[in-house]
Amino acid sequence: MKTAGIIAEFNPFHKGHLYLIEKAREKGADRIIVVMSGDFVQRGEPAVCDMHVRAEMALRSGADLVLELPVRFAAASAEKFAFGSVSILDSLGVTDSLIFGSESGNIDKLDEIADLLCREPDEYRSALKNALSQGLSFPAAREKAVASAMNYPVEELHELMSGSNNILALEYLKALKALDSKITPETVSRVGEGYHGNAKTSDKKTPFISAESIRRKLLQDAVANGTDTCDSVLEYVPGCIHELITESGCFDTPVGPSDLSMILQYLLHTLPEQDIYDSLGISGDLADRIIKNKNKFTDFTQFARDTATRSIPYSAVCRALLCIVLRLKKEPADENSVKISESTYSRPEYARILGFRKESSSILRDISDHSSIPLISKASDIKKYLSGNAYSHFMEDIRSAEIYEGILSNKKGRAFRPELSRQIIRV
Amino acid sequence: MKTAGIIAEFNPFHKGHLYLIEKAREKGADRIIVVMSGDFVQRGEPAVCDMHVRAEMALRSGADLVLELPVRFAAASAEKFAFGSVSILDSLGVTDSLIFGSESGNIDKLDEIADLLCREPDEYRSALKNALSQGLSFPAAREKAVASAMNYPVEELHELMSGSNNILALEYLKALKALDSKITPETVSRVGEGYHGNAKTSDKKTPFISAESIRRKLLQDAVANGTDTCDSVLEYVPGCIHELITESGCFDTPVGPSDLSMILQYLLHTLPEQDIYDSLGISGDLADRIIKNKNKFTDFTQFARDTATRSIPYSAVCRALLCIVLRLKKEPADENSVKISESTYSRPEYARILGFRKESSSILRDISDHSSIPLISKASDIKKYLSGNAYSHFMEDIRSAEIYEGILSNKKGRAFRPELSRQIIRV
Repeated sequence: MKTAGIIAEFNPFHKGHLYLIEKAREKGADRIIVVMSGDFVQRGEPAVCDMHVRAEMALRSGADLVLELPVRFAAASAEKFAFGSVSILDSLGVTDSLIFGSESGNIDKLDEIADLLCREPDEYRSALKNALSQGLSFPAAREKAVASAMNYPVEELHELMSGSNNILALEYLKALKALDSKITPETVSRVGEGYHGNAKTSDKKTPFISAESIRRKLLQDAVANGTDTCDSVLEYVPGCIHELITESGCFDTPVGPSDLSMILQYLLHTLPEQDIYDSLGISGDLADRIIKNKNKFTDFTQFARDTATRSIPYSAVCRALLCIVLRLKKEPADENSVKISESTYSRPEYARILGFRKESSSILRDISDHSSIPLISKASDIKKYLSGNAYSHFMEDIRSAEIYEGILSNKKGRAFRPELSRQIIRV
Repeated sequence: MKTAGIIAEFNPFHKGHLYLIEKAREKGADRIIVVMSGDFVQRGEPAVCDMHVRAEMALRSGADLVLELPVRFAAASAEKFAFGSVSILDSLGVTDSLIFGSESGNIDKLDEIADLLCREPDEYRSALKNALSQGLSFPAAREKAVASAMNYPVEELHELMSGSNNILALEYLKALKALDSKITPETVSRVGEGYHGNAKTSDKKTPFISAESIRRKLLQDAVANGTDTCDSVLEYVPGCIHELITESGCFDTPVGPSDLSMILQYLLHTLPEQDIYDSLGISGDLADRIIKNKNKFTDFTQFARDTATRSIPYSAVCRALLCIVLRLKKEPADENSVKISESTYSRPEYARILGFRKESSSILRDISDHSSIPLISKASDIKKYLSGNAYSHFMEDIRSAEIYEGILSNKKGRAFRPELSRQIIRV
């Protein structure tokens, strides 16, 4: 039995994601485990649909098991996001390979770069310092430093190190190395529109449009109100989940960053300033800027844009604001921490099951036999399995899900569904 | 110079309020000082229009000076609301009389009852205990006990002690006694629709409709969206403020309890439980109920209704929920505290000017010469005038105003106006 891992947000699930699952099968995967962000994603915003329906989308499209990435990794930098996800797949003890998309499709070269970024030899460090002092942005300086340390043409490296999927691919490879993992990395070349693609949804020549395009379309239609939202994006979503979309109504009230606006503004005016400084993923400089700008708040996105600087990118501001809303706090590194480049990360200490395919339920037994972390199947029983930091991290996940559910129930005008009462999805 | 005080919410200002001001003039008032709730009112909800525009409504309608009642008194029980307001008028050192509406119009009998309620003689206490043990509600038991202690027919007392204005009138009289104030109480008989009146706004026979009817109409029209909101209520509002209403647009986006729903739900899922117990105006029993019910939240009003019990009335629940939203905390009584009936209240330690009539600016000098508390004219200079508890209570007022302003700017989609930058209104 070959077991493949996939790390994803499925925000929302579309044909490109189905293609990745099919490619994983072609590469010989008998079973596919997905580690997926919960209700909040790495861009520093709420997912467009809630995690339970997104997990079901993946299961109906061929994934065998979907696990939730704890929110303090899901709403973090690409490096930490990748580390947390890879660490879970590694801890399960059953994952043979990690399958991920990349623009380059060239695993050997990506691996060589990742190796350099993990080792950070002196020649790389001094070239990086030099490039930064010339006023280059960090990504551009890093490309230049890698090119110089590897003796590669900068243009070739730019192709390998740019593109959202390449960047994440490098982080997955770094994490596998830092964890000294036995999991084999395998890449699938990305086809169709890029991550930030702008293709019109009516353009039939684009077989796969990006999740971002779908989200934009859903959110715009929701604002315009009344247009038949689903129909305009359904063609980009596998047929096997059309029924789920209709039944759950998940595309009718898409959630976006502006749904956090009122809460964030409230917090900026009520939280003690120290709570902003103590928030996860926030530097002193950024906290200063957030506090200084708070009276200029009109909307989550506008505020993040106005607060971003050359050295603090927009997405990092969004993640910091999200951590404020979710009340995630900084913590000292623990004894299980792993160092990657400049940062040290604690490993996730549990894996929560969002759902599984009934025909693949043997995978749960296999994981129980081999995993070094508890597999959580019943959230309400959590005190039996977790204590200390692990317990409080799990409760962060629950609290985050309930903040999302509060927003959603408010938008839909329907009753609140407590997270601890939610059942595992069985497909 | 005779100076009269009026205690009000003006939520919003209407013809009945103008009538009260005119009656005060008829009773010989040369100058009228208003103590008014800020952005949150005694019903435990946001005011329908912000305090700056409501203060301007009063000034344009003949009030000479409008002071803000600190939020921890404004969002409190009738007894504490009355105590805080009367205490400010008393502290100013220039107020000769307190003018208030009442259904009864009979000041002597109200005063006799207030005297009894302050003294609480044994015969009253035992009659109250007895009536409560028979299962009567507190207001009904109190009427019965007063009737028995005063040897009055219960029906007559019911007439004197029921009606929102009578109830407040009794509290004003109790506060004047507890403070041993030199201010003379004077009552004006209420005409037109009662406080909770249900008159249709199209009924021309009702000269004064209640503020509640106007709010309901404004909020319903805002939900219906697009109808010409102002016109339907303008006839119940003095002509001298029509222009202000149009210019400020204050009736176009009325604020109601449901505007607090998302924030309250967020807080119920993120605040440490202890913070709920520590909130102002909340008993342990009520905190227990709020925490137990939190997963059944759909809307502020529905939640308050579901949480209320026989012994915890709906309005007390609303005030408690409001204190949670405004982050107001319980505090021990200080050395200046005054006891009324069962409760002990600290006196307000400052009076913030919201606005004044330029022709009456001499009143400000008079108050400066006689007041025992600072008169705050510039909120941004506050550290010069206040320290300790007084400073933190003032900052509660500012924070509450900014929470309201955050909601309003969000509804209107316009820039946030920091409270500390707001200017005093000069009419």
